[in-house]
Amino acid sequence: MRYPSGLNKEFIKEKRFDNRGMNLEDDLNITNDYYLYNNIACIYKKPTPIKIVKVDYPNRSNSKITEAYFKIPSTTDYNGIYKGKYIDFEAKETQSLNFPLENIHDHQIKHLNTVYSMGGIAFIIVYFSKTSDIYLLEIKEFNNFINTNHRKSIPITYFKDKGYKLEYKYNPRIDYLKIIDTIINMEVSNEKENKKD
Amino acid sequence: MRYPSGLNKEFIKEKRFDNRGMNLEDDLNITNDYYLYNNIACIYKKPTPIKIVKVDYPNRSNSKITEAYFKIPSTTDYNGIYKGKYIDFEAKETQSLNFPLENIHDHQIKHLNTVYSMGGIAFIIVYFSKTSDIYLLEIKEFNNFINTNHRKSIPITYFKDKGYKLEYKYNPRIDYLKIIDTIINMEVSNEKENKKD
Repeated sequence: MRYPSGLNKEFIKEKRFDNRGMNLEDDLNITNDYYLYNNIACIYKKPTPIKIVKVDYPNRSNSKITEAYFKIPSTTDYNGIYKGKYIDFEAKETQSLNFPLENIHDHQIKHLNTVYSMGGIAFIIVYFSKTSDIYLLEIKEFNNFINTNHRKSIPITYFKDKGYKLEYKYNPRIDYLKIIDTIINMEVSNEKENKKD
Repeated sequence: MRYPSGLNKEFIKEKRFDNRGMNLEDDLNITNDYYLYNNIACIYKKPTPIKIVKVDYPNRSNSKITEAYFKIPSTTDYNGIYKGKYIDFEAKETQSLNFPLENIHDHQIKHLNTVYSMGGIAFIIVYFSKTSDIYLLEIKEFNNFINTNHRKSIPITYFKDKGYKLEYKYNPRIDYLKIIDTIINMEVSNEKENKKD
């Protein structure tokens, strides 16, 4: 039986949800769509950076790129605005129980630190496919690990201790802004504490 | 005479600067590099969104895209963080003395309004090549025009009246954050006024 294309898509998504076989990027995009649609936040995945070499113009309205190459991204994948705050993060999947540091570029770490130093909220989201766990780790905790360890990967236990576990739900799929609320509230109470001193 | 490639580039840029023949995108990128390098702001142009259809993998490290198409962007070209605030804008050039509204997609206008409603700073930058003038127009003034006019373009006089003129300098090339300072200060004093009432 052939479903109308829309229904079919929904059906496939539903199936994937039941099987808990997830694709982090797709699920974050669906989550961000939910946030946007409900006027909660405006966060997008940036397009993949590409160096275009050759373009064919068969006619006025169509142009076909016939030679192009992937470029190394200069920033992270996701950014946007939530409660007036600038949000910036990178999302990664790993099959290991240790997150390999080579999975994230040095300039992406530098970028997250720049954002953090300018008052933005910067973090990484890592999906450990072996255990189906998703964690959010703030850039400051990421730095703490790098500065006190010489390992080439961050063990999942560090994410458990210093990060936040993200639940996988139906809607919103991965509600990471709930954690951002916690982080914002902590910042506010820290500021109050500092003013008292 | 052949210059070392770096010097040559600088030479070309210098020449272009003298001739006042500008390319808005390049000049904004150079401006944003300046802001980043001096730790003033972290604002980037998003990559052009592309739908990749075919990729050749001649070897492990290289992959060549052999068929791809341009996609309509879902957001604006530039976004980032300045003084803890989320910044979002679209930049356009026109050879006319009226900025054609068809130059900016409806969903980009919608996006700028979403950002504005969430507490971000949203605007457009338009370069009028005929007079070499660059203007910054806040999204709220853009809306005012659309809501009170039935014209298909915004005349440069409206930009003069309701927008901010941007000077073209050597470094930073187009110092639009100076205007953003003015906008932030006005917002702060408006908030104070509202609290008084």
